[in-house]
Amino acid sequence: MSFRYELLQKRGQARRGRIHTPHGIIETPEFLPVGTQATVKALTPQQLQELGVQGVLANTYHLYLRPGSQLVEKLGGLHKMMNWPRPIMTDSGGFQAFSLGAGREHGVGKIGGVFPGTTAKKPRGAVLSNMVKINEEGVRFRSHHDGSTHLLTPESSIRIQEELGADMILAFDECTSPLADKAYTEVALERTHRWAVRCLEARRDTPQALYGILQGGAYPDLRERTLDFMLKWPWQGFAVGGSLGKTKQEMHQVLDWTVPGLPDDKPRHLLGIGEFSDLFEGVARGIDTFDCVIPTRFARNGHVFVPPGSPGRSPRGTWNVLNARFFDLDEPIQKDCECYCCANFSLAYLRHLHKAEEILAYTLCSMHNIHFLLRLMAEMRRALEEDRFAELRGLYCDDLGAGLGTGAT
Amino acid sequence: MSFRYELLQKRGQARRGRIHTPHGIIETPEFLPVGTQATVKALTPQQLQELGVQGVLANTYHLYLRPGSQLVEKLGGLHKMMNWPRPIMTDSGGFQAFSLGAGREHGVGKIGGVFPGTTAKKPRGAVLSNMVKINEEGVRFRSHHDGSTHLLTPESSIRIQEELGADMILAFDECTSPLADKAYTEVALERTHRWAVRCLEARRDTPQALYGILQGGAYPDLRERTLDFMLKWPWQGFAVGGSLGKTKQEMHQVLDWTVPGLPDDKPRHLLGIGEFSDLFEGVARGIDTFDCVIPTRFARNGHVFVPPGSPGRSPRGTWNVLNARFFDLDEPIQKDCECYCCANFSLAYLRHLHKAEEILAYTLCSMHNIHFLLRLMAEMRRALEEDRFAELRGLYCDDLGAGLGTGAT
Repeated sequence: MSFRYELLQKRGQARRGRIHTPHGIIETPEFLPVGTQATVKALTPQQLQELGVQGVLANTYHLYLRPGSQLVEKLGGLHKMMNWPRPIMTDSGGFQAFSLGAGREHGVGKIGGVFPGTTAKKPRGAVLSNMVKINEEGVRFRSHHDGSTHLLTPESSIRIQEELGADMILAFDECTSPLADKAYTEVALERTHRWAVRCLEARRDTPQALYGILQGGAYPDLRERTLDFMLKWPWQGFAVGGSLGKTKQEMHQVLDWTVPGLPDDKPRHLLGIGEFSDLFEGVARGIDTFDCVIPTRFARNGHVFVPPGSPGRSPRGTWNVLNARFFDLDEPIQKDCECYCCANFSLAYLRHLHKAEEILAYTLCSMHNIHFLLRLMAEMRRALEEDRFAELRGLYCDDLGAGLGTGAT
Repeated sequence: MSFRYELLQKRGQARRGRIHTPHGIIETPEFLPVGTQATVKALTPQQLQELGVQGVLANTYHLYLRPGSQLVEKLGGLHKMMNWPRPIMTDSGGFQAFSLGAGREHGVGKIGGVFPGTTAKKPRGAVLSNMVKINEEGVRFRSHHDGSTHLLTPESSIRIQEELGADMILAFDECTSPLADKAYTEVALERTHRWAVRCLEARRDTPQALYGILQGGAYPDLRERTLDFMLKWPWQGFAVGGSLGKTKQEMHQVLDWTVPGLPDDKPRHLLGIGEFSDLFEGVARGIDTFDCVIPTRFARNGHVFVPPGSPGRSPRGTWNVLNARFFDLDEPIQKDCECYCCANFSLAYLRHLHKAEEILAYTLCSMHNIHFLLRLMAEMRRALEEDRFAELRGLYCDDLGAGLGTGAT
C-alpha cells in the first residue's frame, strides 16, 4: 500500500484521520512509543500488539552506531529484525548526534528549561561541546559508546534510514537549543533548508514517506520563513521540530504559527513530545502523531499515569508506585483500566517489584502507561468524531495546573 | 484438591508420576523455574503459562525480608499477589540465611567448587561469617538489604511459609558446606533432625504439603542415618538438600545413597540443582522435581541452551549469544524450537539486544531457556513412559564431557 494521509474530520485545527503506510494504517491522532534501539524497552512486540500500539519510532543515531544500519538491512530491515509488522518511523539522527554526540546530555530539553538531574553547561549557540562539529557538509560527532568519530550528512542520514527501512523517515536537520539566540537560529535554519533539499535529492525510489522538518525556534518570522520554504518541496509529511520555546505556552505558539499553514492532505508529526497535556494541546493544534519516551521511562521510574481526580496525582498526571502509601494497597493502579497490569496486579505488588528492582516492574508499568496513553488517544479520536474534544481536554487537563494554553479549537 | 503423589511408572529408580496440589497437577519429572522475589525474572506470569511452566519455587528468605510475609498474606498469599494460578514451592529460608545473611556470597556452591566470579573466603565449618550465628534455637543473621538482625527458627520458617501460602513448603534445615568436615556435618545433621521435629510440631492445619529435608553431606553413613530418622515422621514429600559433595560424581553418590530408600508414594525434590546434565542424572536416580536459577540467570548473561550437536556447544550445553560469530546470523537459536524467541528473532538481533543491555534480551533468552528445559523434561517423561530414558540421556549428554556417572537405570 502506498503512503497517504486520509482526512476524516477537521474540528478547528484538530484532525481525525488515517495514515496509510506499507505496514498498515495508523488511526490518528495517535501516540507512537519509542523503541530507541529497535525495542520498546521492557516489552515484547507481542505485548505491544496486544496493547494496540499502531506504530513505533526508532532512533537512527543509535541504530547507525549499534548494531549498524547495514546489518539491519542485511537482516531484512527493522520490521523483520525486531518482528514488528506495523508502521515504524525513524528520526534523522540529528538531534541525538548534537546531544549524545557531545559526550553528555546537554541538559536542555526541546522545550526550554534544564532537565531534572542534569546540569546545563553554559550552552553556547547550538549547545554543542567541542566533540561535535557542525558545518555545511553535516555533523561530525563522537560515538557515546566508544568515542569513535562519525560524520552524519543529509545524504548519509537518508541512506541510513533507507537501510533501516522504516515506513516514515525524516529529513536531516539541525535542532537548535531553546537557549540559542535568534542570529544563530537563523543561520541554522538556512542550513537546514539547504540540507532539506539535499535529503530530497539523496532519496532513492523506496516506498518510504519522507517528512520535512520545520525548524525556526520560538521566532515567529523564522517559523513563517521555514513554512514558506518547506511547502515548495514534495514532502509526504511534516514534522515540527527544533526548539519549541522555553515554556509550554511558547510551544503552543510555535504550533499555532506553523501547523495551520500546512496542507490538509499531509500528516503532521510533533517530535519527541509526549507529556500528558502536550498530547491534548498538540492535537488541538492539528498534530496527527507524537513520539516520546515518557510512558516507558516514567514506568521504569515507578511513575504511572492515573486519571483525573486520582488523589495525589502529580502535575504530570502520575502516581509514584514507590510511595509508602501503596505499601499494602491491594488495588490496581486504576480500577477501570483493562490493561494486563491493572487486571492482575496490586499497587502493593508493583511497589514490591520496583523496590526489588525486578524487571517485571518495568514491564507491567510500561504496559499500563502505554495502554493509558493509547486509550487517551482513542478517546480523543472518538471525541473528534463526536465534536466534543474541548470537553475531553478539560476533563483530563483542568486539574493539572501545568499552565496550558487556550488551544485552537 | 488435597496433596498427593501418583506414581505412574517406575523404570529402575526413575519415576514418571503426578503431584496433585491445591493449585493443580505437576506432571513429573519436572523442572520448576525460580521466582526468588515472587517473580521469575524478566517474565510475566502469562508468559510463564504460555511456556507451559507447571510450578515455580519462591525464596522464603527474600520474601520474609521484602516485602514481608505478613504483607504477602494480607495480599491473599503468593498465588494471588503474583497472579500465578499454578503450584508454588517455597524453600525454608535456611540456605539464604547462611549465605546471603553473611553479607556476601560465600563463594561455594551446593556441589563443591567455587562459583565463577566469586572468591571463596577461607570457609570454616559451615562457611559462616561472624554476621551469622547458629545455635539450637535457630539462625541469627543480618539482612543483606539493611544490616538489620533477624532470627529464623524452625517455628518462624514454618509460620512465614504458611503466610506465603505455597502448595509445597520445606522443613528448616542447616545446609552445610561441601567444605565442612565430617564432625561439623554430623553436629549440624543432628540439629537439623531436632529442627525437623519442631517444624512438624509448629505447622498448622493448612492444605500445604510439608517436605522433610535430607542432609548429611557427602558421607554415606550420615546420609543413611538421616534417611532412617526422617522416614519415621509424617512428611508429605522429601527434598534432598545440603552439601551434595565436591564433584558431580559425589552428587550422584549422594542421590544413590538417599533416594532408593524413600517411599514410592511421596514426591522427591532436589534443591537448587538444574544444570543440564544434572536433570538427567537426578531423574535417573528417582528425583521428581528440580528448581534452579540457571535457565533465567544464564539467559540474562547471554547463555542459551542448544541441542546436542550444535557447533561450539559449551560443556554446560549452551551458546553465548554475545559471541562475534553471531554478529550477522539471521537464524534463530534453534531452528526446530517453537518458543516465541526462536519463532521470531535472529541470533544477530539477540546479540544486538544483549550488547545494548536491553531488557528484551533477558526476556527472550529466558523464554528460550525455560522452554528448552521444559521440553527436555517433557521428552524425559515420554521416554520414561516408552522405556527409552537411557537412550535419551545418551543423546543429550554424551557430548558434554561433564563427567557424568552411570546412573541407576
